[in-house]
Amino acid sequence: MRPSENRTLDDVRMRGFARRQTVEAALSWLDAQLKVLEAERVPLREARGRILATSVVSDFDVPGFDRATMDGYALLAASTEGASSYNVLPIAVIGESMPGRPFEGVVAESQAVRVMTGAPMPAGADAVLPAEWAAAEPPATPGAIARSIGALMAMSPGKNVGTRGEDIVRGTPLLEAGRLLRPQDLGLLSSIGYGEVDVIRRPRVRLAITGNELLPSGSRPRGFHITDANGPMLAALVERDGGAVDFPGLICDDAAAILEALHADADVILVSGGSSVGIEDLAPGLVAQYGELAVHGIAMRPSSPTGLGRIGHRLVFLLPGNPVSSLCGYDFFAGRAIRALGGRSKAWPYRSVRGRLSRKISSPIGRLDYARVKIADGLVEPLSVGGASLLSSTTRADGFVIVGDDSEGFAAGTEVEVWLYG
Amino acid sequence: MRPSENRTLDDVRMRGFARRQTVEAALSWLDAQLKVLEAERVPLREARGRILATSVVSDFDVPGFDRATMDGYALLAASTEGASSYNVLPIAVIGESMPGRPFEGVVAESQAVRVMTGAPMPAGADAVLPAEWAAAEPPATPGAIARSIGALMAMSPGKNVGTRGEDIVRGTPLLEAGRLLRPQDLGLLSSIGYGEVDVIRRPRVRLAITGNELLPSGSRPRGFHITDANGPMLAALVERDGGAVDFPGLICDDAAAILEALHADADVILVSGGSSVGIEDLAPGLVAQYGELAVHGIAMRPSSPTGLGRIGHRLVFLLPGNPVSSLCGYDFFAGRAIRALGGRSKAWPYRSVRGRLSRKISSPIGRLDYARVKIADGLVEPLSVGGASLLSSTTRADGFVIVGDDSEGFAAGTEVEVWLYG
Repeated sequence: MRPSENRTLDDVRMRGFARRQTVEAALSWLDAQLKVLEAERVPLREARGRILATSVVSDFDVPGFDRATMDGYALLAASTEGASSYNVLPIAVIGESMPGRPFEGVVAESQAVRVMTGAPMPAGADAVLPAEWAAAEPPATPGAIARSIGALMAMSPGKNVGTRGEDIVRGTPLLEAGRLLRPQDLGLLSSIGYGEVDVIRRPRVRLAITGNELLPSGSRPRGFHITDANGPMLAALVERDGGAVDFPGLICDDAAAILEALHADADVILVSGGSSVGIEDLAPGLVAQYGELAVHGIAMRPSSPTGLGRIGHRLVFLLPGNPVSSLCGYDFFAGRAIRALGGRSKAWPYRSVRGRLSRKISSPIGRLDYARVKIADGLVEPLSVGGASLLSSTTRADGFVIVGDDSEGFAAGTEVEVWLYG
Repeated sequence: MRPSENRTLDDVRMRGFARRQTVEAALSWLDAQLKVLEAERVPLREARGRILATSVVSDFDVPGFDRATMDGYALLAASTEGASSYNVLPIAVIGESMPGRPFEGVVAESQAVRVMTGAPMPAGADAVLPAEWAAAEPPATPGAIARSIGALMAMSPGKNVGTRGEDIVRGTPLLEAGRLLRPQDLGLLSSIGYGEVDVIRRPRVRLAITGNELLPSGSRPRGFHITDANGPMLAALVERDGGAVDFPGLICDDAAAILEALHADADVILVSGGSSVGIEDLAPGLVAQYGELAVHGIAMRPSSPTGLGRIGHRLVFLLPGNPVSSLCGYDFFAGRAIRALGGRSKAWPYRSVRGRLSRKISSPIGRLDYARVKIADGLVEPLSVGGASLLSSTTRADGFVIVGDDSEGFAAGTEVEVWLYG
């Protein structure tokens, strides 16, 4: 008996991928599938961090009226001409204007209306004499307002007055579609009358976590069963990337159950486990049969048994069951898609820093490597990882370094880019 | 009549703050008040981004058994000694081991058990011969497993076997208290049997948005009324900083209503509006009367009419009604406190970059300035801001530059640190 003779189908299935695609080719297929989802209207209170779907132009001037920007006395600037502490000019106080409660009359020469910051300017007045430049007579009753003041300083017209439209002029473009909404954006939208806002819908992501050896999260591992790590991890990753998670529970390695999940009401299906070419790896065949398995097997480590495809409008990601492969495959492909569908940047949501390697990282030409590293004493230290499957390597690590498939790695002392998990 | 003569109480109230404290002094008082809140137990599914309250040590080895790390045949390494494609050694296949479904017997010399990645190693076996180095006889029935194979390569003991505890050894410290939980941390916790985890409780933050001129968010501004911007903005800021928001609606400038809010069941009270020294600025007096008004008036711009205090166990922040002052006062003081109470870093949750100023920024000695800037063509451009109150300046800006109170500002061309909003 010699290699390549007398092989059964089962045997062929166990022999691995015929040809792995490059990460670049996989991303190129993926990017061609990505279209931003439609808009949905949400209450402003739920819009933080969402992506604005439609550019916003104000229908209003903000403020809609001239207002005082200091506490003091609204008057005609001309009434204060020549005023100083040696030439105190008498001004009659004829009323008050408070925020939301304007003075209804008209201010004439040598008259004033007491105003608080934000109060509407009374008709006739064109400046506010700040309280600290007004000497007041004691009023007849405590708490009542002074009936006259002395102006201690000259004001120019417009002084301490915020004019109508000073913040926002009606018709001005304010926020562009595609913007990630910040807290102050929500304040701005509220100030021009928005109680709801149109944002890009969250991609709906169904998690199909497969594996007969798995116990659901919350179970203590026992015997030859292990407790699912990928469900909670992938759910958190999807939420980080703006997706809405549907995770109804674990699925057995059973074609009917996987097929049902592959047809879920969702934009994206993440299948975890059974993504390779072994006899219990059912998902790739099902995707090929009922949809399109565009990529299967990628020249990277970990995550080489990753698959990308479609079933109808659904993007399907076949992620290896090993948790580190699952994290890496998610970050390279699924996370990118979820962010893009939701109108976000395709780029990793990780900050990067640069640092020098304490030890070399080796990697064969033709394969991209995802090397977990710690940053210690200003140096980037590759973690010694016995197996690709060790999730603890990603919790001990501060981040990762990518060695491209055109590189044999980096010598000790090389400055590299580190993507930070935290 | 001369300044400083014949002043009424009302008049004094309108004259501004007696003495403003420095930002440093205000932070020093604040930091002395901050203690991390107690723990609460939450489901793993809700723990992303929360702060771990108790260090985690595993009670389990993960995996809890030796397992195959390749698809292939589990056997004694000794059975393959001398094997090559020119010296194919016959091996009898006596069963199979799948993930979660171990082989119950014992493997003897020249025997093997077919294994899938992740499957428990059968007793007796100490290596896995990968499928691609095994030549298989066609089985009698399609789909059945081959009854014998030929080993095409010699394996050393331990080859392609993941040993018990390879990922996590029982008793090893895994995650330290105070850690912000990442997606992979949740996976790790799940794998060692956690369905829930102890995290620092979210600070409860009551928003007391005051102002007779305000309409609730969702209303169109009309007449001399303006629509509340601060409520939606502050709610989003608090959530960003890990707080739980209680915002039951707007409050009138009424002592009883403000007093009730100041005694709410909360860790932190944010009062927006009425924080200054005018006649309708009720909150400072109430805090002083019923608790401690430790800081009132801060040498900064905007946000100088900010107050800090306590009522019972509650930290109280009096924020100016003007939305930019509100944002700035929140970020300097309230956000810091909310993050610290929740076990997070006191540092701003903004990234910073360095860049050169396109124009000078001036600022008087003795006052800290918060200058909004755009980054354009690689230069940091200060925004011309007519009034401190213009919320649109914070939505047009990419971020802000801080000019310390010991600085007169920066000349054009100076390299400055820009804190990015986005």
